[in-house]
Amino acid sequence: MGFNDIPAHVWPRSAVRNAAGQVEIGGVSLPSLADAYGTPLMVVDKRDFLSRCQDMARAFGGGENVHYASKAFLTTQVAKWVAEQGLHLDVASLGELEIALHADFPAADITAHGNNKSEAFLRRCVTAGVGTVVLDSFQELERLEKIAGEAGIVQNVLVRVKPGVEAHTHEFIATSHEDQKFGFSLASGSAHKAAVMAHESGSLKLRGLHCHVGSQVFDAEGFKLAAERVLELYKQLIDAVGEESLAVLDLGGGYGIAYTEDEEPLDVDEVAHDLITAVGKTAAELGIEAPRVMVEPGRAIAGPSTVTVYEVGTVKDVHVDDDTTRRYLSVDGGMSDNIRPALYDAKYDVRVVDRVVAGTPITTRIVGSHCESGDILLDSAQLPSDIGAGTLVAFAATGAYCYSMSSRYNMALRPAVVVVEDGAASLMLRRETMDDFFALEA
Amino acid sequence: MGFNDIPAHVWPRSAVRNAAGQVEIGGVSLPSLADAYGTPLMVVDKRDFLSRCQDMARAFGGGENVHYASKAFLTTQVAKWVAEQGLHLDVASLGELEIALHADFPAADITAHGNNKSEAFLRRCVTAGVGTVVLDSFQELERLEKIAGEAGIVQNVLVRVKPGVEAHTHEFIATSHEDQKFGFSLASGSAHKAAVMAHESGSLKLRGLHCHVGSQVFDAEGFKLAAERVLELYKQLIDAVGEESLAVLDLGGGYGIAYTEDEEPLDVDEVAHDLITAVGKTAAELGIEAPRVMVEPGRAIAGPSTVTVYEVGTVKDVHVDDDTTRRYLSVDGGMSDNIRPALYDAKYDVRVVDRVVAGTPITTRIVGSHCESGDILLDSAQLPSDIGAGTLVAFAATGAYCYSMSSRYNMALRPAVVVVEDGAASLMLRRETMDDFFALEA
Repeated sequence: MGFNDIPAHVWPRSAVRNAAGQVEIGGVSLPSLADAYGTPLMVVDKRDFLSRCQDMARAFGGGENVHYASKAFLTTQVAKWVAEQGLHLDVASLGELEIALHADFPAADITAHGNNKSEAFLRRCVTAGVGTVVLDSFQELERLEKIAGEAGIVQNVLVRVKPGVEAHTHEFIATSHEDQKFGFSLASGSAHKAAVMAHESGSLKLRGLHCHVGSQVFDAEGFKLAAERVLELYKQLIDAVGEESLAVLDLGGGYGIAYTEDEEPLDVDEVAHDLITAVGKTAAELGIEAPRVMVEPGRAIAGPSTVTVYEVGTVKDVHVDDDTTRRYLSVDGGMSDNIRPALYDAKYDVRVVDRVVAGTPITTRIVGSHCESGDILLDSAQLPSDIGAGTLVAFAATGAYCYSMSSRYNMALRPAVVVVEDGAASLMLRRETMDDFFALEA
Repeated sequence: MGFNDIPAHVWPRSAVRNAAGQVEIGGVSLPSLADAYGTPLMVVDKRDFLSRCQDMARAFGGGENVHYASKAFLTTQVAKWVAEQGLHLDVASLGELEIALHADFPAADITAHGNNKSEAFLRRCVTAGVGTVVLDSFQELERLEKIAGEAGIVQNVLVRVKPGVEAHTHEFIATSHEDQKFGFSLASGSAHKAAVMAHESGSLKLRGLHCHVGSQVFDAEGFKLAAERVLELYKQLIDAVGEESLAVLDLGGGYGIAYTEDEEPLDVDEVAHDLITAVGKTAAELGIEAPRVMVEPGRAIAGPSTVTVYEVGTVKDVHVDDDTTRRYLSVDGGMSDNIRPALYDAKYDVRVVDRVVAGTPITTRIVGSHCESGDILLDSAQLPSDIGAGTLVAFAATGAYCYSMSSRYNMALRPAVVVVEDGAASLMLRRETMDDFFALEA
């Protein structure tokens, strides 16, 4: 693919390079947005976000089976979009729940996660009428039982199970134990015990089990193996808790997206079909009713909708050794607005968005403006030689885990987030100012 | 050391376990602060911070030779403390500069860093009267020359040199080139050229050279080798630019602190003496006047002053394999308030602070409350078995790069920061609220 092409499987669905050579999203050119709102700037293609909600709902048999994972990116407006598409919502903290309730998200359609839910969070779930709480420990089971009991409410719950399956991108690891903080162990019998306790509690109503296998997963194999293991537990539980308490199987999130040109995004319809078929088949083999499959995509919905626009500042050609030169492009953001390259060695697709480039390929590293040598946004790529100070570049697929993990390192102020649709732009989140920091000072 | 001991070389200087078994800092018990301000809570020992300023100033021959590196942790109050101790200040962004100016920090005592200083940042430096700008690229040299020229000001500058020395903790790597974004290459002649250009500019006044070798460095060797290389450049430059333009040698930051019981903190007096002696000796050998040595400690001043107090929630014993169990303690913070373990594999010293513990050692992992399995604060340690829900624990040496890199991941709200001194506590930064987020929504 040439430098001026826009890989459709990575970029927002409406992204095109227009006749003037500028990249447009939602019918609005990115340079005009940079002019109006400054850089760094995050631009959300609303129709892209909505269409991925619809794709997921269709693939999994209805929006009620798809819980958008707030942690990827949540604002009041995003919560409203998710509700309008008929999807349900996952929250993993009191703060995420507060945003959802602020958006009037139907509480009954919210599921609450977390390995260490505070008493305040659990209490807010119960009093606000949150549909489902995913139990993560015996302490929490007791705590929630007490809170629900005091409130005179019967709280729907799922039990989170560690199935001993860890899935990553194109591989998965199956173990008998799982060394992580979430959930109840399947192997040790803890999950079984927790399910029975939840079923027997007068203040809790067990609805099924939950498991999560990993992130950036591109095929159904890891999910399927986890589902098989969990379904065996359904069979073991069915006499003790009854079919109604096992109506749901929540397989969590982790659906992969393409960050770079050479990655293939997960085929949502195919994976959904594979998964649901496999669950049905396994259930039939076990002689039990197939539970309803639910999923929790975050990145797969929010990720591809958004790009981050930066302005290039300093350009430096560095001799790496006597024979090799690397071009360093510094942009006006960095690890404060996108920690993923530093934290996860994440890769991105980067394009010049303000004009057609004509340069030759040069080994390039894109770095941020932070006072830290590890502040690298793009470790190495062949980028055109005609990028200079003032050039606008954009990183694609920054909709998930960028803004939500953003910091103010070096007193960088969080970027503005703008929504584009049908040729119009509107501000979703304003750029931070120094007063946002000074307001915290006593 | 026993579980109830407080390693003096890691914790704030005033930290003690009192007769009631609680840990006190600045004469205030941590449980009383947790009661008053909630958790997670950052507690700053003011006298510890001030005393480390004094130690550095004494070791390096005066506060004017010691520039506190803002990026470690900066608030208006911190900037005032640094000014009161007579130290100078490093800023690496417009935001950090704005805090300094807000604190009425003497602009002449400020040095401005950055690989990609924006035009707005450079302009603010010039108009506010910032003492020194550290030049990082030829583009910046031109840009600053133009801005200073337009303002009719002669701006003092240092030239940042890449000496090809990379120092880490107990080792250093010497190369002929350096593959990083900061500074001008020594090997290629760029640094020489930049120094001459700065000297010849009518709007810039060259004061010397700058280099930075790394972080968490525990001895003088890496600094000394870098100084030797840079001093050779002084000798080469002396005819072209004159002695007055080479009066200063800024050796940057990187002075190591002890994060764990078994680490020895760097001996500031010894390293300062070694460095200054080495610079004098090398200068004498080269037949040049020894420049004044300046340094930029951030972590070495702010790091040990502060602890982070968490409340333990969930406790879970996980079978890692058939023979091994690991205890997972979840606390009410995590990678949002301390990204360093996830980002740098950083280690910490953790103690129970609300009582004397009596348990036996258990293999323990401390995790945060975030919806991410990588949200680990302490990977593995032998901690007492009698830690349960409600126990208060504190992480020592969290004063640098914790608050300054903090995020709102999972809509975690930034903790409060409290200053303790002589038995009294006062709020430095209040805890964030949901309204701090909602204020950004358009």
